[in-house]
Amino acid sequence: MMNFKAIILAAGKGTRMKSKYPKVIHKVCGKEMVNHVINVSQKSGVNDIVVILGHESDVVKERLPKNSMIAMQTEQLGTGHAVKMAKEYINDEDTIVVLCGDTPLIKEDTLRRLFAYHLENEYHATVLTTKVENPTGYGRIIRDNNEDLLKIVEQKDANEEEKAVKEINSGIYCFNGKSLRESLDLIDNNNAQGEYYLTDTIYIMRDRGQKVGAYNGSTIEELMGVNSRVELSKAEEIMRKRINESHMVNGVTIIDTNSTYIESDVEIGNDTIIYPGVMLKGNTKIGSNCIIEMNSAIENSTIGDNTEVKNSTVIDSVVGENTTVGPYAYLRPKSNIGNNVKIGDFVEVKNAIIEDNSKASHLSYIGDAHVGKDVNIGCGVVFVNYDGKNKFKSVVKDGAFIGSNSNLVAPVTVEEDGYIATGSTITNDVPKGALAIARERQVVKEGWVEKKRSKDNQ
Amino acid sequence: MMNFKAIILAAGKGTRMKSKYPKVIHKVCGKEMVNHVINVSQKSGVNDIVVILGHESDVVKERLPKNSMIAMQTEQLGTGHAVKMAKEYINDEDTIVVLCGDTPLIKEDTLRRLFAYHLENEYHATVLTTKVENPTGYGRIIRDNNEDLLKIVEQKDANEEEKAVKEINSGIYCFNGKSLRESLDLIDNNNAQGEYYLTDTIYIMRDRGQKVGAYNGSTIEELMGVNSRVELSKAEEIMRKRINESHMVNGVTIIDTNSTYIESDVEIGNDTIIYPGVMLKGNTKIGSNCIIEMNSAIENSTIGDNTEVKNSTVIDSVVGENTTVGPYAYLRPKSNIGNNVKIGDFVEVKNAIIEDNSKASHLSYIGDAHVGKDVNIGCGVVFVNYDGKNKFKSVVKDGAFIGSNSNLVAPVTVEEDGYIATGSTITNDVPKGALAIARERQVVKEGWVEKKRSKDNQ
Amino acid sequence: MMNFKAIILAAGKGTRMKSKYPKVIHKVCGKEMVNHVINVSQKSGVNDIVVILGHESDVVKERLPKNSMIAMQTEQLGTGHAVKMAKEYINDEDTIVVLCGDTPLIKEDTLRRLFAYHLENEYHATVLTTKVENPTGYGRIIRDNNEDLLKIVEQKDANEEEKAVKEINSGIYCFNGKSLRESLDLIDNNNAQGEYYLTDTIYIMRDRGQKVGAYNGSTIEELMGVNSRVELSKAEEIMRKRINESHMVNGVTIIDTNSTYIESDVEIGNDTIIYPGVMLKGNTKIGSNCIIEMNSAIENSTIGDNTEVKNSTVIDSVVGENTTVGPYAYLRPKSNIGNNVKIGDFVEVKNAIIEDNSKASHLSYIGDAHVGKDVNIGCGVVFVNYDGKNKFKSVVKDGAFIGSNSNLVAPVTVEEDGYIATGSTITNDVPKGALAIARERQVVKEGWVEKKRSKDNQ
Repeated sequence: MMNFKAIILAAGKGTRMKSKYPKVIHKVCGKEMVNHVINVSQKSGVNDIVVILGHESDVVKERLPKNSMIAMQTEQLGTGHAVKMAKEYINDEDTIVVLCGDTPLIKEDTLRRLFAYHLENEYHATVLTTKVENPTGYGRIIRDNNEDLLKIVEQKDANEEEKAVKEINSGIYCFNGKSLRESLDLIDNNNAQGEYYLTDTIYIMRDRGQKVGAYNGSTIEELMGVNSRVELSKAEEIMRKRINESHMVNGVTIIDTNSTYIESDVEIGNDTIIYPGVMLKGNTKIGSNCIIEMNSAIENSTIGDNTEVKNSTVIDSVVGENTTVGPYAYLRPKSNIGNNVKIGDFVEVKNAIIEDNSKASHLSYIGDAHVGKDVNIGCGVVFVNYDGKNKFKSVVKDGAFIGSNSNLVAPVTVEEDGYIATGSTITNDVPKGALAIARERQVVKEGWVEKKRSKDNQ
Repeated sequence: MMNFKAIILAAGKGTRMKSKYPKVIHKVCGKEMVNHVINVSQKSGVNDIVVILGHESDVVKERLPKNSMIAMQTEQLGTGHAVKMAKEYINDEDTIVVLCGDTPLIKEDTLRRLFAYHLENEYHATVLTTKVENPTGYGRIIRDNNEDLLKIVEQKDANEEEKAVKEINSGIYCFNGKSLRESLDLIDNNNAQGEYYLTDTIYIMRDRGQKVGAYNGSTIEELMGVNSRVELSKAEEIMRKRINESHMVNGVTIIDTNSTYIESDVEIGNDTIIYPGVMLKGNTKIGSNCIIEMNSAIENSTIGDNTEVKNSTVIDSVVGENTTVGPYAYLRPKSNIGNNVKIGDFVEVKNAIIEDNSKASHLSYIGDAHVGKDVNIGCGVVFVNYDGKNKFKSVVKDGAFIGSNSNLVAPVTVEEDGYIATGSTITNDVPKGALAIARERQVVKEGWVEKKRSKDNQ
Repeated sequence: MMNFKAIILAAGKGTRMKSKYPKVIHKVCGKEMVNHVINVSQKSGVNDIVVILGHESDVVKERLPKNSMIAMQTEQLGTGHAVKMAKEYINDEDTIVVLCGDTPLIKEDTLRRLFAYHLENEYHATVLTTKVENPTGYGRIIRDNNEDLLKIVEQKDANEEEKAVKEINSGIYCFNGKSLRESLDLIDNNNAQGEYYLTDTIYIMRDRGQKVGAYNGSTIEELMGVNSRVELSKAEEIMRKRINESHMVNGVTIIDTNSTYIESDVEIGNDTIIYPGVMLKGNTKIGSNCIIEMNSAIENSTIGDNTEVKNSTVIDSVVGENTTVGPYAYLRPKSNIGNNVKIGDFVEVKNAIIEDNSKASHLSYIGDAHVGKDVNIGCGVVFVNYDGKNKFKSVVKDGAFIGSNSNLVAPVTVEEDGYIATGSTITNDVPKGALAIARERQVVKEGWVEKKRSKDNQ
């Protein structure tokens, strides 16, 4: 059975990145470049991924999808050499696409069309190409009378007629597995650079009478290779605008597309408004009709419909519908916030369930807790979950009222409708409907300020 | 008496917006597109506003100025049909301008010059026009020998000579009320689309010997119609830069004009510096020589001269002169802050007066309160204004000192120079110059930690 | 001995700035324009700086480097007049460069090459020039047959041949000190404007047989003079991108170069990632492999390797390695944070040492303190350093545990392994390994809520 397989060249160091990390794991819109290439391949129909690794292979490997196949290229002897290293993974019935791990902008649809063109025309090899206004420096695509590929001429080897050709080589190729295997055995490094060129396989196929083609189906933008941090930031900018535009087309208002940072896997419902400075990361899902105000950072979290998040940080959490968060709230991992809840300013929640219609309006910490419905958590309340050695959990049941600046020393349970007086440190469970108070009575010392001032001034 | 009246076409749905809301209420720089058009009309001299509504008319109507006149167009049968729906509002002595509710970038000065041109030349109808390098797709303006308007030729109907014309129709028209009324009765929908065209009224006038004109007085940018969220964000970008540039011309330093978000009605004094990421909304007025640092969001508020707001949120509030707010402060509605005040980090104020020279430097909540002059509010202080059922107000008079982590349980009054000891929960009034203390004495248990550790490790 | 001396013209008011401050002290990327020019001069080899002041000279003078020489130009009678005012500072053996205080974008390397060209060719005067596509409005550089400078022709005086010249005058000049002194005495103001032109000195030299030259070594961007706030923001944008690009070349990842604000003297180690909305000011040094997340503002501070700063404000402080700060933390001046420390959300530190492995995770204020190693500071803890009159310091030694919502009333010492119970106000020293507790026991009143509700509803 026919199988689509991608061979991704990712062995290079990327010296110009000036990094201790190999180039392909630098991130664009929150994802390693090589993983963008892998994800796009998979979406376009590729079943198996083979990654050619070299420099710092371990640090790349641990970031790849679990089921990736790895081939090692310990010496850097050219693209043909790199693909040779993967020979054991190339089967006769495969359709192979060769991609570079540093071109994160390649599009799924482009690859899908390349595959179709390659198969429909029964080519043994197909080069993806594009046309550019100024082809200087690129390899020119020379076609024969059948519009098949005749050859690829590098800049230095091109005559005047060839230099005028505007169709250029993308560096992305599609191959018949059998033809590729066979021709890889025949390429050599008898050239000035002493390198094995992958394009030589194409000429070998043509020489053997195997039809080879060129598919003009890419844009130049997609082919941008990232070799420096400046190029990394350009790729990021292009991808950012591409992602933002797709959300706008889907009915999301993005007030400033230049200053809104949405990673590629984020989902957003229509009529949601995203303010400038917002960053949405990972597997985040935002509902419809939400308002995500300035400078909110939301990562791997789900936000329900009609909810507002204002200038807050939300990580690995779930927020319900019609809820407001912030400004200046911090939902740490495993916060599970219900509907119609208010999480106000300077409030931190961590590993806690807060059920519908409850409020924590300001300056509180709710950690390791289960808070029921209709609970009011006053200002300055601390769920004291740590005694210096262990962490414990507290429970506050429906309808309870936790007075301001009070402490719930875990483990402790406040039963339904329990009422904690302002300024109390609660160490024992509070029965249903009971008041718990733990503070000293107020004493007034008249004239004290005058005396203090006299003393201070002595 | 002559009366300027605008008829604003706002009946369309705007399918490409992918929204449950009608297109014209989507916002640009914080204001609904239709309201931008209305405001610009009014500033240019228009007295009466007639809005033609159709899709979701109620949701548009409730966002319009109270005195707007409404005409309903339940079927979408063309621009002529839309204006016909407003016929009852068109009086003989009116000067009518017809505008689209989805062109928020039109400028006041352009309309004012259009009106002057229309009236000075005694035209019965005047088309606003502009010249563009590439007119493809636009209706071309064909003038007669007097430079009056002969006709408007659509792209599909244009011959080569007409196609070369670079003057195009803006879709904005000025009419003599009487001539418009009369000609509206005569237009029909005998055309391929079965629509009533507003431009037909112009030909009818010309046929009746009424002089009609074309005023080349717009830029293409002003005419941009918004049909998608991508276009919405482009309109926002253009308006944002336009607003920012006007403030810079007035003597305001804007460090990064691309990332500074100022709504159209905001006023700012000279020598004020606006940092990137700042958002100024609604009827905000900023004084002179202020510093509004990064990421501050200020809405419907007044900020006095020489005041600094750092990375804070201010809503519906007043802040005096020489005051500092933030970073990370939150002034909620009805905060009224005096001169030389410090509202520091992680401080929330709500519905409270804080008079001159007072300080709330950190981690406090001051809600429903009147704080006098020269008051020091310590760190962690809570004005406890809510008992689970009702909200109450507290008063802290001049010179008082509120110790850290103390609670003022409202309603309570701290008289002048009253002094609250750290960690006290104050439930009764504090007399002038008195110390109020409400906390337990410190007890020390030697060797306790060692014992706890042994126990923990058992 | 030869001495490089810069004369910087900074006497203008800059009316179009609409400012009460003189133009040259308006800032670009955090530094006054005139100081950019001074710094670039010094880096290019200039030893002495002479600044010509006029409008509001005091307010400029106080912002200049201490060793700057000042000459006053009380009337504005042209560039020649301005330089005449500095005549006392011009010595025969000097090499003089004349610069404008409002061209902050001039580059060090350009000046260095100008000096070399001037000296190698033994010119008495050398004009820095550049070539532009459209020279309209600029002074054209006319060279003689030796490629020396023949004359500079202003737009209004240029014939057709001269108008076609694309090499233009930068307004930056290099002079032999002796030749300049002598020729300055000979210039007059017998011209339409009644001004003394500095370029007249060049013609005088040429007339006296002294060789004068033109060095085409600048880009037009460097020469941009700032005359309005709009131009100020453009200069800021150019310098911002220039600074950001230099960091990227050095191995720093900047996710969005348009929205990252780094002042010119900041240093950043490689493999550090800077998120959008970050502002790095003054003499800030960031280590390698750090993550500076969105909207962090860091000023005059040092951040160690592998440290993360998230959405926080850091001023005049030092942070160690492998430490995390924020989100929403505020390090005020003289915070000295160790390695492996956690300063969490809504935490303020001021004038405090916090040693290695300690944590203040949330909602705390640590002011005027020395906190040792392995200390845990609970949530809501306040270091109460102010009694309304004086500030005092507290000490918390290694291994101590400060329970949540407790107060340390300074001056107080918690000895090693001391343990403060939640909700305690500590006024006396705590011995080593002791528990200190200062709170009331919890009392429960059953059925209280029901009674309160009945009463509330009466």
